[in-house]
Amino acid sequence: MTAERATIVPKKDGIAIIVYNSTFDIAMMPMMIAQGALSMGMEVGIFYTFFGMNALKKGFRPKMPGMWRMFTGMMEKKMGRQGIPSYAQLLKDNIEMGAKVYACTTTMTVMGVRKEDLVDGIEIAGVAKFLDMAASAGTTLAIG
Amino acid sequence: MTAERATIVPKKDGIAIIVYNSTFDIAMMPMMIAQGALSMGMEVGIFYTFFGMNALKKGFRPKMPGMWRMFTGMMEKKMGRQGIPSYAQLLKDNIEMGAKVYACTTTMTVMGVRKEDLVDGIEIAGVAKFLDMAASAGTTLAIG
Amino acid sequence: MTAERATIVPKKDGIAIIVYNSTFDIAMMPMMIAQGALSMGMEVGIFYTFFGMNALKKGFRPKMPGMWRMFTGMMEKKMGRQGIPSYAQLLKDNIEMGAKVYACTTTMTVMGVRKEDLVDGIEIAGVAKFLDMAASAGTTLAIG
Repeated sequence: MTAERATIVPKKDGIAIIVYNSTFDIAMMPMMIAQGALSMGMEVGIFYTFFGMNALKKGFRPKMPGMWRMFTGMMEKKMGRQGIPSYAQLLKDNIEMGAKVYACTTTMTVMGVRKEDLVDGIEIAGVAKFLDMAASAGTTLAIG
Repeated sequence: MTAERATIVPKKDGIAIIVYNSTFDIAMMPMMIAQGALSMGMEVGIFYTFFGMNALKKGFRPKMPGMWRMFTGMMEKKMGRQGIPSYAQLLKDNIEMGAKVYACTTTMTVMGVRKEDLVDGIEIAGVAKFLDMAASAGTTLAIG
Repeated sequence: MTAERATIVPKKDGIAIIVYNSTFDIAMMPMMIAQGALSMGMEVGIFYTFFGMNALKKGFRPKMPGMWRMFTGMMEKKMGRQGIPSYAQLLKDNIEMGAKVYACTTTMTVMGVRKEDLVDGIEIAGVAKFLDMAASAGTTLAIG
């Protein structure tokens, strides 16, 4: 029995990401990683905090950073030609495919964001939720 | 006996963070993650390198990034109303609660930072220290 | 037999890094972490995507970010005095020492980068390669 129990190894097939900014590159990264991870059968959890919160708002369209801002449309077109959906579509797809997406409670309060400002399917949770997901995920990343 | 030994699984209850910038959002993130992790009984190790080094200097008060710099005071007030201490207080609290905080040896030499420039309780170590902490931590993050 | 199998624990001695920007600090970080990790006998895998792709181009010399750009030469000199090689040399050394370095297929197509634009020894792969490396690495980081 003891030996049987011993064969239980920590789950290595999950990924937990904390996102803390929302420029085009930062917003797209976890979406594309999530697409890959979900298609490989991995569990995906993404937690948005600080400036990352914007990426969960209804109608949000991420812009390229700094002086590259004006090239956002061009980048979207180039990616579209490779069959990559828009950011909003990717977020919707990932949630439908089973990714768990969380908005940070504290950030929402501090920035005055309400649940109805966020796209459908987002859950609200504290940093403990991210730490819980990360503890059982083989891959943990902070992107921002 | 073999079975007994086999029940020893890699420690999954620690978190190791490498911090490489020091704007308000970047400086606060590891502090708030550390607060959550310490209260959950996790071991916390944070390693500061490159521009992250500033966050360990005595009297350091992180500013919001870029054009948001002038809103630093407003953000501090908003967070204060949610019961979130100042950055300096959080760093002090985390160290007192048991977080291990390291300043990168190479960065200190390159940037001419001396031990007496740093807040109390900081240890000085090379990148091998971060790699050691990360190898035994279930959660590893780079924030910057 | 069951007990024997139970002693097989997930490999904890590898590091997988995804890099998504290419300023001096961001480009140097994974190189110096890789140096430490390789000298400790760890397996190293680094995956470059989005703006990180530049860091793999032949002749690339990373610049300090924003207004610090003009201080790039000074920083290189200061680091050189501590025995730290140039970025290009570090990349070459790490590959020769066994680090696996990957350029993101999608980023190459979107940004019009060709294999011959990249330094020798780089492999081209999709995000699944990063997820694979990360799943078996004890330490996973996103740097950008």
